[in-house]
Amino acid sequence: MAQPPASKPKVVDVHTHMYPPEYIQILESRSTIPLVRSFPGATDPRLILLDAEVPALDAALSSGPDPPSVLPGRPLTRHFASVSQKLHFMDTHGIDISIVSLANPWLDFLPPATAGPVATSINTSFSTMCATHPGRLYFFAALPLTAPRETILAAIAHAAALPHCRGVILGTSGLGAGLDDPLLLPILASLAAASLPIFLHPHYGLPNAVFGPRAAGEYGHVLSLAIGFPVETTIAVARMYLAGVFDAVPALRMLLAHSGGCLPFLAGRIESCIIHDGHLAAQGKTASPPRRTVWEVLREQVYLDAVIYSEVGLKAAVQAAGEDGAGRVMFGTDHPFFPPVGGGEGKEDGVWESVGLNSLAVERAFGAGTSGAKGVMGGNAVEVFRLFGE
Amino acid sequence: MAQPPASKPKVVDVHTHMYPPEYIQILESRSTIPLVRSFPGATDPRLILLDAEVPALDAALSSGPDPPSVLPGRPLTRHFASVSQKLHFMDTHGIDISIVSLANPWLDFLPPATAGPVATSINTSFSTMCATHPGRLYFFAALPLTAPRETILAAIAHAAALPHCRGVILGTSGLGAGLDDPLLLPILASLAAASLPIFLHPHYGLPNAVFGPRAAGEYGHVLSLAIGFPVETTIAVARMYLAGVFDAVPALRMLLAHSGGCLPFLAGRIESCIIHDGHLAAQGKTASPPRRTVWEVLREQVYLDAVIYSEVGLKAAVQAAGEDGAGRVMFGTDHPFFPPVGGGEGKEDGVWESVGLNSLAVERAFGAGTSGAKGVMGGNAVEVFRLFGE
Repeated sequence: MAQPPASKPKVVDVHTHMYPPEYIQILESRSTIPLVRSFPGATDPRLILLDAEVPALDAALSSGPDPPSVLPGRPLTRHFASVSQKLHFMDTHGIDISIVSLANPWLDFLPPATAGPVATSINTSFSTMCATHPGRLYFFAALPLTAPRETILAAIAHAAALPHCRGVILGTSGLGAGLDDPLLLPILASLAAASLPIFLHPHYGLPNAVFGPRAAGEYGHVLSLAIGFPVETTIAVARMYLAGVFDAVPALRMLLAHSGGCLPFLAGRIESCIIHDGHLAAQGKTASPPRRTVWEVLREQVYLDAVIYSEVGLKAAVQAAGEDGAGRVMFGTDHPFFPPVGGGEGKEDGVWESVGLNSLAVERAFGAGTSGAKGVMGGNAVEVFRLFGE
Repeated sequence: MAQPPASKPKVVDVHTHMYPPEYIQILESRSTIPLVRSFPGATDPRLILLDAEVPALDAALSSGPDPPSVLPGRPLTRHFASVSQKLHFMDTHGIDISIVSLANPWLDFLPPATAGPVATSINTSFSTMCATHPGRLYFFAALPLTAPRETILAAIAHAAALPHCRGVILGTSGLGAGLDDPLLLPILASLAAASLPIFLHPHYGLPNAVFGPRAAGEYGHVLSLAIGFPVETTIAVARMYLAGVFDAVPALRMLLAHSGGCLPFLAGRIESCIIHDGHLAAQGKTASPPRRTVWEVLREQVYLDAVIYSEVGLKAAVQAAGEDGAGRVMFGTDHPFFPPVGGGEGKEDGVWESVGLNSLAVERAFGAGTSGAKGVMGGNAVEVFRLFGE
C-alpha cells in the first residue's frame, strides 16, 4: 500500500520576541530603564534595557542638542513591533511557525495596579495577531507578576483560554525574590495545572562590578549578554532545584533560553557539590520521594532551546537532556536581537548571521536532514507545544 | 624487529592542592577570611575561605563555649599539609604523578611587604618536597601579586630556576584589577618568556546576592562552588580575550581549572556577541594581526583540566579544544577538597567519590584504555609539562 507523501518537516522558532505597540508606548513614557528614547542624528529610537547600558544612556542624555558620540542600547527598528516584518523574517529563513513572546523585561517593572490590565491587553493583542495568521504564529503569554496573587492567577486563566497561547514567558525575578520563593509555588502550580510550560528567559544578568573596570567602556555588551544572561538562567534553575520546586510541582515544564545558560555544562559539578555536602545529601535522601538528581530533572521537566551559536554547546545540551535528548532541544533565533552584522535597514530584510550560526550548529551536530536535525529544527516543538495548525 | 615493551601509561593529576605548614600558620594568625580556627567539639580545625562562609563563621564565633550547631567552612584535615597523605591518596587512586599547587586564595591577601618572602619560602618548600619524591611530584609556584613589580618578577625568576616547578597558579584578581589589567602584562610576558604556564583557578566567585536570600541558610556552598567558581574563571578569561591579552603575549599558555568554567559551553555565544557588536567587530578586523576568534585562542594558548564531574561537560571541553582537543585536556582531582561522602577520618584514607566521578567521565567520553583516555588521564600532562622523571 502506498504511503501518503511525507509532509515537509516544519521549522519552528521557539525563541522569538516582539514588543507590541502598546508596550513600546509604555517604554517611551519612562525615565528609568527599561525605556525607549530618540536622539538627534539617529534614524531609529533607542531601546535601553540593561544596567550595563546606563552609563552610555547618561552620557547621551548629557550631550545636549548635538548627536551623542555613542548611542546607548540598540536601535528599535520596525522588527520589534511589526508582524509583517516578523513574517518576512520567517519567510527569509524558512521558518514555518514562530512561538512569539514579549521580550525582556516583560511586565516586571510595572506598578501592581497597572500590571494586570497591561497583561490582559498584551496577551489579547498577541492572540489576535496569531489568529490573523493561522498555523504560522503562536505565543507565550506575559504574566503581571508585580500584581496581587489573584490578578496573576486570573491572568493565567485568561492566557490558558486564548487559543494560540502555548505557555508563558518568565524572567528570573518571580515575585521579586527569585524562582525559589515559596510564595511563587501556587503560581507555578497553577501554570502546571493549566498545562502552560514556562519559557524561562534572562534579563537581569550579573552585577556590572563582576565584569571589571574595563567592561563598560571597552567591551560593549559582550560580557553582560554572553555571560551574565546565561549565568542568570543557570542560577535561577539551580535555586529552583535546590528548593525542591521541581519535586513540589512535578507537572511543571520549563523551556530554558540559550540552551539552559550553562546548566548542561555545569550539571555534573552542581550534582557533585550536592553529593559532597553532607547536610544536603542527607536531606535529599530523607525527602519523600527522595530528591532526583539534576540530570533526572533536566530529562523529565526541562526543555532547552538551541540558541547557543556552536555545535560544541548544542551537543552538550542534547546530551544533558538525556537518551532522547535530541527530542528536548528546539531551534530558536532570538529575533529581533542580534540583527545582521554591519547594520543598515535594508540589510535587516536579508539573511541574519545569528540565525545561520544556530542552524549551522544543528547541521553540524546531527548532520543535515537527519531525524535529529529535523526534530530540533521543528518536529520537537510541534509535538511539545501542539502546533497542529489550528 | 621486536618493539620495546610499551611502558604503562602514566596517570597525572594536574589539579591537586596543598597548604604547607607555614601557610597554615599564617591562616591561623588571621581574624578575617581566609583563616583557620578551632571550635570546641570539632576534631579538626576549620578552614574558612569564602565570603559565603562568613555568616556561619560569625554564628559559630558567637556561640560561646558550647560547640556551635553548624561549623563554618570545612575541616582542615591532615590531607591539606601532609605529603605522605598526598602520596597515599595518589597510590589509592593509581595516580603516578601530581603537579601540586598552593590552594586558594594563595598569597592574594598578604601585605605587600611580606608577600615576597612568603612566596620564596613556600615555593622553596614545594621544591624541596618534590625533590624528596623524584618523578612523583612537581608543582605550580605561587606568586606574590600584592608585592611591587620587581618582587613579582624576582619570584618568577626564582620559581623558573626551581627544578620541579612547571608553572604558576594564579587567581583571577591579578594585581587587584583583574587579568585584563594592562599593568599585569609585563608579569604575563615574563611568565611566557620563562615558559611557565599559568594554572588559572577561581576563588572569589560571585557576590552572594546573586544567589538569592535562601542560599546562605539552605543551599550550603553549592551555588558558590558549583556556579560562582566556574563563572569567575569564565569571566576572567573572557576579559583577557577582549583586552587582547592573548594576542599581546602569544607565548602565554594557560591551564584553566574546572574545564574552563563555562567557557567551552559559552564560547559560541561570546564569539557571536562580539561579531554582532559593530564596534568590537571593526576593532578586531583592524587590529594587527586581526583578532583571533575565541575558538582559535582556546586551541592555541589554552589547556583545560578534566575536573568537570560528567562526560557531558568533558566532551564539550574536548570539542572546544579543537581537532586535537583530546590532547589539550588533563585529568585532575581537586584533592584535598570534596573528600569522601559521609566524612570520617578513616574514610578519607579510602577511595574518593569525587575522583571516581572524574575518571568515570573520561572513560565514558573516550572508552576505557583508548588513546584519548590515556592522553587525558596523563599522557597530555607528561608532554605539556615535561614530566620526564627528573
